[in-house]
Amino acid sequence: MLRSCTAALRKLRALRGRREGASPAARDPVLARRWFSTEKVIPKDHALPNPSWSKDLRLLFDQFMKKCEDGSWERLPSYKNSKLVKDQLSQAQLFTRGYEDGLGFEYVMFYNDDEKRTVCLFQGGPYLQGVPGFLHGGAIATMIDATVGMCAAIPGGIVMTANLNISFKRPIPLCSVVVINSQLDKIEGRKLFLSCNVRSVDEKILYSEATSKKLPLSILGLFIKLDPEKSLT
Amino acid sequence: MLRSCTAALRKLRALRGRREGASPAARDPVLARRWFSTEKVIPKDHALPNPSWSKDLRLLFDQFMKKCEDGSWERLPSYKNSKLVKDQLSQAQLFTRGYEDGLGFEYVMFYNDDEKRTVCLFQGGPYLQGVPGFLHGGAIATMIDATVGMCAAIPGGIVMTANLNISFKRPIPLCSVVVINSQLDKIEGRKLFLSCNVRSVDEKILYSEATSKKLPLSILGLFIKLDPEKSLT
Repeated sequence: MLRSCTAALRKLRALRGRREGASPAARDPVLARRWFSTEKVIPKDHALPNPSWSKDLRLLFDQFMKKCEDGSWERLPSYKNSKLVKDQLSQAQLFTRGYEDGLGFEYVMFYNDDEKRTVCLFQGGPYLQGVPGFLHGGAIATMIDATVGMCAAIPGGIVMTANLNISFKRPIPLCSVVVINSQLDKIEGRKLFLSCNVRSVDEKILYSEATSKKLPLSILGLFIKLDPEKSLT
Repeated sequence: MLRSCTAALRKLRALRGRREGASPAARDPVLARRWFSTEKVIPKDHALPNPSWSKDLRLLFDQFMKKCEDGSWERLPSYKNSKLVKDQLSQAQLFTRGYEDGLGFEYVMFYNDDEKRTVCLFQGGPYLQGVPGFLHGGAIATMIDATVGMCAAIPGGIVMTANLNISFKRPIPLCSVVVINSQLDKIEGRKLFLSCNVRSVDEKILYSEATSKKLPLSILGLFIKLDPEKSLT
């Protein structure tokens, strides 16, 4: 067993205790070293090819990198450990980057600001199984949520999903590559409305369609101290 | 890097090749040993307490085990590696059981046949993070999909999700315990309609609500050889 959730809960309680009394860093030397260290760690960008990427994923990646050359599209980097807030659980990591290369979510996103579109190239590994041989519906929902989330976050700041409505048309075979195409449809006040579809590489198979409503965090009563040097992909 | 998706793809191609010619077992001695071994491996049931379970999760588990004593409720066992089909990827494992104890999805489901209800007690670990400090929307969607899936599968056989519509009311803190309550509302022909909510342990906080439509696999053109000795939870 790696570090357990019980340990994470202890850390969470320590962090919560900060509001009520002495700093948790004063009570936790490991945490204190992390907080006050001047050492700069360069995080790994996971949205780049690795040996587990299939030929399809590499080809699509190269095509989109070509589209980036004139500035109409940009590749979005992706980190496992977000440093957006300083008061987070030390063990916590982004759900979609929790597995070793090739076993879980392999993906890269590209954004087109003029069209308010985000495209995610996604290869779902063998640890994402639902019905044998196919991706779990939750894994598809996760990548749809992540893609529409990025499509909303770039114009709208950090947002949370208020609604996610997915129609699954056909099951997606494990280890295949799909293209998730997300579009910002409209903004009403502080609400953002998006749509999304999931297709095969040749665009002939429509696997899923979705709509989503997103809200800024502040509507939900959440305020997070942001580190502008890091993104949340 | 563990075994990569490329290796999994090779295995998949080998399995597909079986329909066109010689058995893949003849070409893959590791696979052959697995297929023709007489050794019985008893799979681990993950729907039982482990050291990462919080006090809340253990207390709820004990309460539901009490309810099982008169036969009105039953605990559903849960395995990482489904043996439902023989022609699956050797690396594949159930998405919701892919992490070590405490880091990802810790859960147990209980079923009430008279009421056609499934309750899932769920503790989401630190590897399921979305917005810092909170569960990823995809992780919540995954457990909702898994719970309504079980609620549909017991009366309806192996099913796949056709639609999943989730309203996220409040974000769920990492490492907290929630109760997912799923209900089979109606059956129309071969379609099953279900609803679901996600609440705090004391039931005071409503985190999410969802509806889902499920279809038997055969409608989607999928036919799977089942091993009746194993379940898919």
